[in-house]
Amino acid sequence: MARYGTQFGPDITFLGVPRCDWSDPASFAGAAVVVLGAPFDGGTSHRPGTRFGPQHIRQSCYLPHDGSRPSLALRVDGLADLAVHDAGDVEMFSGDAERSVRDLQEAVHAIAAAGAVPLVLGGDHTIAWPDAAGVAQHLGQGRVSMIHFDAHADTGDIEFGSLVGHGQPMRRLIESGAVRGDRFLQMGLRGYWPGPETLSWMAGHGMRSYEMTEIVARGLDACLTEASAIAVDDCDGVFLSVDIDVCDPGHAPGTGTPEPGGLTARELLDAVRRLAYELPVVGVDVVEVSPPYDHAEITSFLANRVVLEVLSGMARRRRDAADGTTWDPRRPLLDGR
Amino acid sequence: MARYGTQFGPDITFLGVPRCDWSDPASFAGAAVVVLGAPFDGGTSHRPGTRFGPQHIRQSCYLPHDGSRPSLALRVDGLADLAVHDAGDVEMFSGDAERSVRDLQEAVHAIAAAGAVPLVLGGDHTIAWPDAAGVAQHLGQGRVSMIHFDAHADTGDIEFGSLVGHGQPMRRLIESGAVRGDRFLQMGLRGYWPGPETLSWMAGHGMRSYEMTEIVARGLDACLTEASAIAVDDCDGVFLSVDIDVCDPGHAPGTGTPEPGGLTARELLDAVRRLAYELPVVGVDVVEVSPPYDHAEITSFLANRVVLEVLSGMARRRRDAADGTTWDPRRPLLDGR
Amino acid sequence: MARYGTQFGPDITFLGVPRCDWSDPASFAGAAVVVLGAPFDGGTSHRPGTRFGPQHIRQSCYLPHDGSRPSLALRVDGLADLAVHDAGDVEMFSGDAERSVRDLQEAVHAIAAAGAVPLVLGGDHTIAWPDAAGVAQHLGQGRVSMIHFDAHADTGDIEFGSLVGHGQPMRRLIESGAVRGDRFLQMGLRGYWPGPETLSWMAGHGMRSYEMTEIVARGLDACLTEASAIAVDDCDGVFLSVDIDVCDPGHAPGTGTPEPGGLTARELLDAVRRLAYELPVVGVDVVEVSPPYDHAEITSFLANRVVLEVLSGMARRRRDAADGTTWDPRRPLLDGR
Amino acid sequence: MARYGTQFGPDITFLGVPRCDWSDPASFAGAAVVVLGAPFDGGTSHRPGTRFGPQHIRQSCYLPHDGSRPSLALRVDGLADLAVHDAGDVEMFSGDAERSVRDLQEAVHAIAAAGAVPLVLGGDHTIAWPDAAGVAQHLGQGRVSMIHFDAHADTGDIEFGSLVGHGQPMRRLIESGAVRGDRFLQMGLRGYWPGPETLSWMAGHGMRSYEMTEIVARGLDACLTEASAIAVDDCDGVFLSVDIDVCDPGHAPGTGTPEPGGLTARELLDAVRRLAYELPVVGVDVVEVSPPYDHAEITSFLANRVVLEVLSGMARRRRDAADGTTWDPRRPLLDGR
Amino acid sequence: MARYGTQFGPDITFLGVPRCDWSDPASFAGAAVVVLGAPFDGGTSHRPGTRFGPQHIRQSCYLPHDGSRPSLALRVDGLADLAVHDAGDVEMFSGDAERSVRDLQEAVHAIAAAGAVPLVLGGDHTIAWPDAAGVAQHLGQGRVSMIHFDAHADTGDIEFGSLVGHGQPMRRLIESGAVRGDRFLQMGLRGYWPGPETLSWMAGHGMRSYEMTEIVARGLDACLTEASAIAVDDCDGVFLSVDIDVCDPGHAPGTGTPEPGGLTARELLDAVRRLAYELPVVGVDVVEVSPPYDHAEITSFLANRVVLEVLSGMARRRRDAADGTTWDPRRPLLDGR
Amino acid sequence: MARYGTQFGPDITFLGVPRCDWSDPASFAGAAVVVLGAPFDGGTSHRPGTRFGPQHIRQSCYLPHDGSRPSLALRVDGLADLAVHDAGDVEMFSGDAERSVRDLQEAVHAIAAAGAVPLVLGGDHTIAWPDAAGVAQHLGQGRVSMIHFDAHADTGDIEFGSLVGHGQPMRRLIESGAVRGDRFLQMGLRGYWPGPETLSWMAGHGMRSYEMTEIVARGLDACLTEASAIAVDDCDGVFLSVDIDVCDPGHAPGTGTPEPGGLTARELLDAVRRLAYELPVVGVDVVEVSPPYDHAEITSFLANRVVLEVLSGMARRRRDAADGTTWDPRRPLLDGR
Repeated sequence: MARYGTQFGPDITFLGVPRCDWSDPASFAGAAVVVLGAPFDGGTSHRPGTRFGPQHIRQSCYLPHDGSRPSLALRVDGLADLAVHDAGDVEMFSGDAERSVRDLQEAVHAIAAAGAVPLVLGGDHTIAWPDAAGVAQHLGQGRVSMIHFDAHADTGDIEFGSLVGHGQPMRRLIESGAVRGDRFLQMGLRGYWPGPETLSWMAGHGMRSYEMTEIVARGLDACLTEASAIAVDDCDGVFLSVDIDVCDPGHAPGTGTPEPGGLTARELLDAVRRLAYELPVVGVDVVEVSPPYDHAEITSFLANRVVLEVLSGMARRRRDAADGTTWDPRRPLLDGR
Repeated sequence: MARYGTQFGPDITFLGVPRCDWSDPASFAGAAVVVLGAPFDGGTSHRPGTRFGPQHIRQSCYLPHDGSRPSLALRVDGLADLAVHDAGDVEMFSGDAERSVRDLQEAVHAIAAAGAVPLVLGGDHTIAWPDAAGVAQHLGQGRVSMIHFDAHADTGDIEFGSLVGHGQPMRRLIESGAVRGDRFLQMGLRGYWPGPETLSWMAGHGMRSYEMTEIVARGLDACLTEASAIAVDDCDGVFLSVDIDVCDPGHAPGTGTPEPGGLTARELLDAVRRLAYELPVVGVDVVEVSPPYDHAEITSFLANRVVLEVLSGMARRRRDAADGTTWDPRRPLLDGR
Repeated sequence: MARYGTQFGPDITFLGVPRCDWSDPASFAGAAVVVLGAPFDGGTSHRPGTRFGPQHIRQSCYLPHDGSRPSLALRVDGLADLAVHDAGDVEMFSGDAERSVRDLQEAVHAIAAAGAVPLVLGGDHTIAWPDAAGVAQHLGQGRVSMIHFDAHADTGDIEFGSLVGHGQPMRRLIESGAVRGDRFLQMGLRGYWPGPETLSWMAGHGMRSYEMTEIVARGLDACLTEASAIAVDDCDGVFLSVDIDVCDPGHAPGTGTPEPGGLTARELLDAVRRLAYELPVVGVDVVEVSPPYDHAEITSFLANRVVLEVLSGMARRRRDAADGTTWDPRRPLLDGR
Repeated sequence: MARYGTQFGPDITFLGVPRCDWSDPASFAGAAVVVLGAPFDGGTSHRPGTRFGPQHIRQSCYLPHDGSRPSLALRVDGLADLAVHDAGDVEMFSGDAERSVRDLQEAVHAIAAAGAVPLVLGGDHTIAWPDAAGVAQHLGQGRVSMIHFDAHADTGDIEFGSLVGHGQPMRRLIESGAVRGDRFLQMGLRGYWPGPETLSWMAGHGMRSYEMTEIVARGLDACLTEASAIAVDDCDGVFLSVDIDVCDPGHAPGTGTPEPGGLTARELLDAVRRLAYELPVVGVDVVEVSPPYDHAEITSFLANRVVLEVLSGMARRRRDAADGTTWDPRRPLLDGR
Repeated sequence: MARYGTQFGPDITFLGVPRCDWSDPASFAGAAVVVLGAPFDGGTSHRPGTRFGPQHIRQSCYLPHDGSRPSLALRVDGLADLAVHDAGDVEMFSGDAERSVRDLQEAVHAIAAAGAVPLVLGGDHTIAWPDAAGVAQHLGQGRVSMIHFDAHADTGDIEFGSLVGHGQPMRRLIESGAVRGDRFLQMGLRGYWPGPETLSWMAGHGMRSYEMTEIVARGLDACLTEASAIAVDDCDGVFLSVDIDVCDPGHAPGTGTPEPGGLTARELLDAVRRLAYELPVVGVDVVEVSPPYDHAEITSFLANRVVLEVLSGMARRRRDAADGTTWDPRRPLLDGR
Repeated sequence: MARYGTQFGPDITFLGVPRCDWSDPASFAGAAVVVLGAPFDGGTSHRPGTRFGPQHIRQSCYLPHDGSRPSLALRVDGLADLAVHDAGDVEMFSGDAERSVRDLQEAVHAIAAAGAVPLVLGGDHTIAWPDAAGVAQHLGQGRVSMIHFDAHADTGDIEFGSLVGHGQPMRRLIESGAVRGDRFLQMGLRGYWPGPETLSWMAGHGMRSYEMTEIVARGLDACLTEASAIAVDDCDGVFLSVDIDVCDPGHAPGTGTPEPGGLTARELLDAVRRLAYELPVVGVDVVEVSPPYDHAEITSFLANRVVLEVLSGMARRRRDAADGTTWDPRRPLLDGR
């Protein structure tokens, strides 16, 4: 195996799951999901530090790093049931964004092509472009819809003289045809960016963006229901992109462009769990965790749990599909499954 | 221009708006709002540090400091539409509270007298006295009502041998007649201060204080509706005083006297936006941001957004008044205005 | 008096209440509640630091340390009305868990036997075993029910080769008969621990554990109502054990095993206040506050307020019992009692 | 006793020494030294926070707070041998510098007049004026020399419109005649303040200021020897004023106006120990410790040890005077005294 | 003027010196030195954050930002005497290292060509390549020698697939002929990088690298004297490149690749002051200050003072050249010049 | 292999050296040194956190974790040349000090018995007892001398009711006969502990303790030379025990009982390198690194380098013994070996 390992620090895996090499599908045979690290922060417009995101998200947990995490809520083991493997990092030199995203897309595509769901740990949001494009490269242009949790639309145009940055991936995905604009759902936007011109571009492409004001007024669950329906309409799968800054800075201080007034951690965990349980997820990324700005690792812990809730939801979806049952969130913990 | 500049650090303005001199109305001709810094923490009874509040609130933002902030939620640009100017700081030596508040009141009054709304960045809450008194000096004693977000009533009597401190401004305002006690609305009180004697004094002056228990039981929106009706009854304008410690310490750790159990950042932003949109605001202060106790600047970011939400609300109020429209918080972001 | 004092730092008391010696009941004659420090973190499975919990919880308050805290919400003074005393710490060498818990239980029992309610400041959750067992030793095995706020069930078996640790106290209590499994109520569980085997053990003993998913789906108040009814069914009193990690890490970062997605500080304060007001509380502990991981003391402040809300609720319960009144959370602050 | 106690937090004493009341000399009968807290930061020109200096300096130690500290280096117990007492804080409202310094001077004078050496814990350096003036009030104007460790000369004129601030105390002392300019020795100055005019004023008053360049070039010990000779020439005692920022920010980050390039902690401890051993110290202050800017309490620990080294030096001086011996720093620890 | 301003935060200048535009020499006519910000951290191999170096180095000072800093040690005003101007930042997108260094070199060259000394604030050490190359472009290849303070040799070959990074600038400078290998002096190297192959390359090019072991054994002053002699042998000027990590992490924690065992802050300040006073400095950079990893800004303060000591040394060198005097470090502060 | 792995976090090794199992000597055949983690902080008398020492010391380095570290100063590769292996942690439950030290001693003894030098990463200083005792168990009681860097003598008697704690290991070693009192050398003691009784005990056993005053007065090198001569007199090997708090808190803030006035990082690195080069080291431990109290990992980085300097010294000692050469610290870096 020619595994690259990890770009920073010791060569560890997500909570101790088995190692694999993305270029060698045999090394992750049987895995429903393959974790990939994207330690890149060269595309961020403000605070850097997300290059250490993969390292911290992989290990921010107080339980044994044994490749097993039985969910209390869902009564499945997201890691073991899905035979999750970890392919280590793609080498991404933050000083060369263009080469970095090219190399990342190759790895993501290889995992998807081998039949596993790629789950990418960022890194700044620049990586959403190669992440979703890599999946679309396998499933077909426009066949993958996007549900995107974020405080920011990330649909900007050239910034700092570059087309490749954390403010632009969603525009790149739509312009390239990888994801249809009218199958692009955004949850949690707020604040003072982008300006009218970009909003017009977004409207023109049929995007559906849920700003926090609408979410508060209508309820998050109603918005998710509506978005889910769009996401599965004439698409073969859903890519889930979670920017940790969708949460309020009080819950996720360790990020580069914090925007006050976001979701609580509880809301985000419930939302991604529900989507992973209800929708056919074909790719995931969790981005913008910046450990240098974190306190007591609370943001890394949260991102680790976002990954686990997605995996638990996917695992329960599989199990329920197999035995024809349905999960009931009101059922008491000790009443069993 | 004899502008003082800023008391600490480089001479910057709020997110890059134009400079002006409060003593020279021509320097802010056309401005609907003038920002003023009050870098004073000599009145705090516990943790100091708010002297650096103006410096941090002015610049805690990851977007370009270009004097423009188009609101996603309201589709107006609070800074540009209101031609906001920044008059820099008033020199306030923390070791001389009496002189400091006198000088501040002079500046606030000058701005109000020139026809602009003063928006003061604290500093500790001592400054609410000169802030609201300066506005009342222009509009008339008792003609300005107060809506006051805070964990604390700030209606204390002599403390540390002084009448001028951050625990007393609201008593000073009422005793002096600047603001009527029965037009004094407080949102978010909680904890174990003040004691019965002061509460009796408050009740005796007809104040209406919403403790968090009532807010939780009845809903924040219902309380705001009730308070708004009182605020505009036989008054010519509303002063909005926002102590950042009205938020829970998890959302606003960088403050001097944190009291657990407060509002979320989302709730505060929605509340001040709504009030600024619905009521005739004639003065504003945002106080008690203490950067030395902050983490990753999240409290400064929040205070910066409190200012922007107030400005956006005021700008939208103007626009809707001009074109006879009404803002609908349930409208999707990309459906336009 | 042979008072031990405090194990770390100067010999202070909870917010300045009078000192006493647990081994000398005369020293706390008339006290309804006696505070006891349990500065032990030898039982924690991950981050230590809770040995400094008692020191910080006692003093994290910006008001004078004068032994008085009149509650705005309840209009009673929890400290003065209950004549709270502070017995200082029990010496607990973190390197000897077995001796430490034995010594703690002796002190707790002595306080209960003298007719006061022991309120223990942890320390890691290991201490819940001696805390509740010490009360049961006085009131009778199985006569005390438990309401337990926590992200974790703490019902584990041998860990690190030991039966005494912060993951096991609840199992110890049930196995020993001190508390009946079917009078054991848990609020706020979440995450990925324990595994199926332990859950079966818990179900087998009739425990009732409210995982966050159920709490979100049904509402916290409904769950508390249900739990309260069980707690007082054929039991003589309720022990309230509050692990600060039941709150979200955004509200309580200073803890050893943070699990994202918990209660807000407001929810916890309201919950413990309500239980203390409605139920016959016979013992309390507040645990897992780890100051080295805290920021700006916000977790210590929260724990201090958890103690005060419990005390205020107990004091108001007494007063209402005496004069036949009932507390109404919707009543405005300035309308008096 | 009408002891005020401490202005912030619980009423503790320096490492557990007995309490006393400065206004009641009987309460500290037999004490060679009385500690006094000056929790004032209203005079600082930049970062505040030193109001918490007394609280932190008193308790930043990992040993039992038992009023005893046997020095390894000097083989005396500075606390016990000198019967040190702690008079608590003087109430100093940071918003009223003039009243605060007046009240402080009264307390310092009372202690000196009662025959004890006042040792004042700051607070910002504003307090050096009342500290040394209070001693001179007792011993006579011009009869006390000053040895002043600091990065800054603190001889400025009116600042922020005030004569009372942490940049001016030394000018006040000289102008008032309390201390002679030619008996004013400064160690450790550096940086870019004050400017030529103030330096001329200083030269004109015969001050002797050792800038770090001279100290590095000639050696600290040589400079101390020279300064000591001046200090005892036609004076009756020496006041030792230690601004913690004389140390490099790497050793003392928790301070308001850090100036890189200072002494190491070791150098400062050795210097004050030596001076206290060799000279007739009649007053001491340790100032500018700002806990909000500290990390892991290292600055508070250092200040605590500065106090202890001064006390140990004084105690050894007494013992050697009594039995005619001399301390030899080269003597091995275990060879005994 | 088409000044770009600053890439992050408000548009400030170094301690308040006048603004200028590097592309318009008239805007800095008369300036001996022009400051330039290089907010780039895309080349760092480990912790990022130096993009915020220029912003913090410019303002980390507690004195007024008035463009004047009279040196106590040297009795000149480095800012005023040299008429220092600040050209703001060069836009440097961290995700495109190649374009960034090209643009930076153009700006540096323009400043040098206009007759001013460029003083560049980094950014990571990648920028030393364009910094020194830009000066050599004006003075001639090989006509500029280099004195380089650093824990690391920065002479590595391709890393992360790139030739442009913070581990390679010195190799680039020598290979390109901009600086002669035998006029390349390195002070303060230590640790475990680079390996033998690179050391051979360095030896082969005649470099002279002073590892800390040699510096401790021989004394820093002796090493500086030796290095200075080489630096001015058959060269027309000296470029001074100061990586803040040459200091011990205790003195400079805010950096990306901290290596224990370095110089003290005092040693570095004395060293650069001396070199600037004794040698013909034609270019300067101060790099690797990473604010996210700093505490209480001590590293930024230190870097600010490194800049000021260099400027003060240069200013005094000019003055002494003009009036034929010599600076004596042993002269007492108050004896005048 | 039945390797336990690591007690906290992912199973990593010291900078990537190969894994081994202490109970299986074949797994570390050929290794001159075996690293062992002792994640125990149950014996600390103040701040805990050292349980995370092994995890942090193993990985606090910005270079690739590839099991190779070529020393610039010594021109050997301590890791590769000595074929260092890492046996992971011994499970040490902090709540059971007695069992923990027993288990640790077994592992240390096994490594020594297999012919390798055990290098133990603490953990608090409690572990020095089993560390040195385990080596003596192999080499013979009294045949191993001790050189002990520390701010504290660690020769205390029963504390908190226990004989096993971080204040007592040296007494245990001497009383048990494992190490002779007159072959016990202590460097760097200072402060106010222990008291006269314990000092008498130490003197009575012939210990030689160098307090900082003596070290400053005589020079560290002279003291080390003297101590080295004693250490090799009638002993077969030297155990080197390095408590990181021997350094000044400015250089090593991340520790439990910081005592101002210690060695610089540079001094410690030079000292341990020299001893490892000159003396027959048979065991090493590096203790008291407490990551929760660290900043920017500077204490962990320092401890990592202490390990590397010891290993480099040992490797160079071997090489010089083999080829008859001698290391000269004055030799320029690029002159080769």
